[in-house]
Amino acid sequence: MSQESVLVVGSIAFDDLEMPQGTFDGVLGGAATYSSLAASVLAPVRVVGVVGDDFPDAHLELLRSRGVDTAGIERAHGKTFRWRGRYSKDLASRTTLDTQLNVFADFRPKIPGSYKTSPYVLLGNIHPALQLDVVRQIGRPRLIAADTMNFWISGEPKALAELLKTVDLLIINDEEVRELTGIQNLCKAATDILQRGPSELIVKRGEHGALLFDAHGTFFVPAYPLEEVNDPTGAGDSFAGGLLGYLARTSGAATSPHTMRRAMFYAAAMGSFCVEEIGPARLQRLTLEELGKRLESFRRLVDFGGSLALD
Amino acid sequence: MSQESVLVVGSIAFDDLEMPQGTFDGVLGGAATYSSLAASVLAPVRVVGVVGDDFPDAHLELLRSRGVDTAGIERAHGKTFRWRGRYSKDLASRTTLDTQLNVFADFRPKIPGSYKTSPYVLLGNIHPALQLDVVRQIGRPRLIAADTMNFWISGEPKALAELLKTVDLLIINDEEVRELTGIQNLCKAATDILQRGPSELIVKRGEHGALLFDAHGTFFVPAYPLEEVNDPTGAGDSFAGGLLGYLARTSGAATSPHTMRRAMFYAAAMGSFCVEEIGPARLQRLTLEELGKRLESFRRLVDFGGSLALD
Repeated sequence: MSQESVLVVGSIAFDDLEMPQGTFDGVLGGAATYSSLAASVLAPVRVVGVVGDDFPDAHLELLRSRGVDTAGIERAHGKTFRWRGRYSKDLASRTTLDTQLNVFADFRPKIPGSYKTSPYVLLGNIHPALQLDVVRQIGRPRLIAADTMNFWISGEPKALAELLKTVDLLIINDEEVRELTGIQNLCKAATDILQRGPSELIVKRGEHGALLFDAHGTFFVPAYPLEEVNDPTGAGDSFAGGLLGYLARTSGAATSPHTMRRAMFYAAAMGSFCVEEIGPARLQRLTLEELGKRLESFRRLVDFGGSLALD
Repeated sequence: MSQESVLVVGSIAFDDLEMPQGTFDGVLGGAATYSSLAASVLAPVRVVGVVGDDFPDAHLELLRSRGVDTAGIERAHGKTFRWRGRYSKDLASRTTLDTQLNVFADFRPKIPGSYKTSPYVLLGNIHPALQLDVVRQIGRPRLIAADTMNFWISGEPKALAELLKTVDLLIINDEEVRELTGIQNLCKAATDILQRGPSELIVKRGEHGALLFDAHGTFFVPAYPLEEVNDPTGAGDSFAGGLLGYLARTSGAATSPHTMRRAMFYAAAMGSFCVEEIGPARLQRLTLEELGKRLESFRRLVDFGGSLALD
């Protein structure tokens, strides 16, 4: 296994999930948690985040048992970030009922010196000025990926514009693409974003798959069709973690357009495991063998025998 | 070019389209029109439908110029079927403002003897009892595909159940799948439908692509991403026409799981051309060369180099 590692910066949280099948309080959550657990199936992970006094050691131990270095998780006085949400019956939409930032409100990511060598960096959805501060701390890794959200797109356009100049890959959803550019058509909006800094753009569309836009064109990966979806929480973060985990694991090979495209399948596969159970339960026991089986099944989902020519 | 032909049965209409970019009255429309024009790029087509006194010969001439045999189009006394609809600003939804069935209200498809040898048959969305009547007239072709809609699913469940026993391929959208089965999850719903008769099910999801379910598993084709979408009218019918056109053209080859899966790309490509211009304007001048170029571009959209294995 490659020793190339992934650095993940972002939120660690407790989620209170009101699902159609019942309410689940105090579930381990946060973007950094999901991304780290997903990436850790494929590569060593280092995580930077903050938790409160109430965060159980057992959760940290869990992360460590999956190959996640938790030395970058700061323990602050106060309570851990807590989010409460309610999902619609078909799980297609959700409403935030309560957000308690708690110790996350004062989160200023400090990257440990030993982490600065990670060649793959994932900046979870935090204030773009903080994401930019991380970029300044780490120098020049092989790839910096960033997530963001509507709140920062509308509220912090200047800081976000600065951030975009420094990242290689932006991973956002289709609504965010439209809000960021003011352009309805995704293809045109993607061209616009690729002129602002990132050389790669991934547009997540939930159960409708994801698009990659780069200098080699456009690539599409579907969502893996599941018989049972239980909790979409963290699927996008698992997607990003799976993507960077795959890149870290295979970085011995020259990074070709195909590498990035294959990474999209690993990302989508990781998202598919994530949604199978409440919280990160499925990810935290996922094996490389199970992942490999899903990838084979995923390959069949898109296998048409290679050629589409008529003659 | 193969001489295997496609038989299309369905509506021929005038559409009044209230689009964000303006209103277009009396546009040539109807499921059979779109399906025939799409299929005709790949194979000879025979069409069965009805038009009124007001239907211009020029439209029939257009169809013939594209290789569509129009001997099966009955001209009845009265007006041609007319539909008026308004699209939302983003073209994602539409409202029917007016439906005048006119001569279509009494449509009883009569399949000319010379048409009964067509090995590929597409039953457009009409009363399932009429679709069944067509099946009884034609004997046993290589493949019968059928479309239907919520109106028949809720209103004519018995006739539809009979029809399903006789068709090989059902092509409907995701809402219709859920209404037909009462099952929310598409994978589970597909399994249910495949036990009712059809050996193949295609679930259309508009701009989110389409899924094929059959004995060989599940296959997904994305929608081809376009910079400019002008009119979604007829996209699903063009999809079906493209699919059967491809099967007819390549039927010399043994029908393998890959054949059906490649047909999904031709179907989606045809849908993508359809939406580029108002009405069937783009389809009616589409060349095989242009189609081939789009297929090559489509192939690149899903090309990850073949293998997804880690080692």
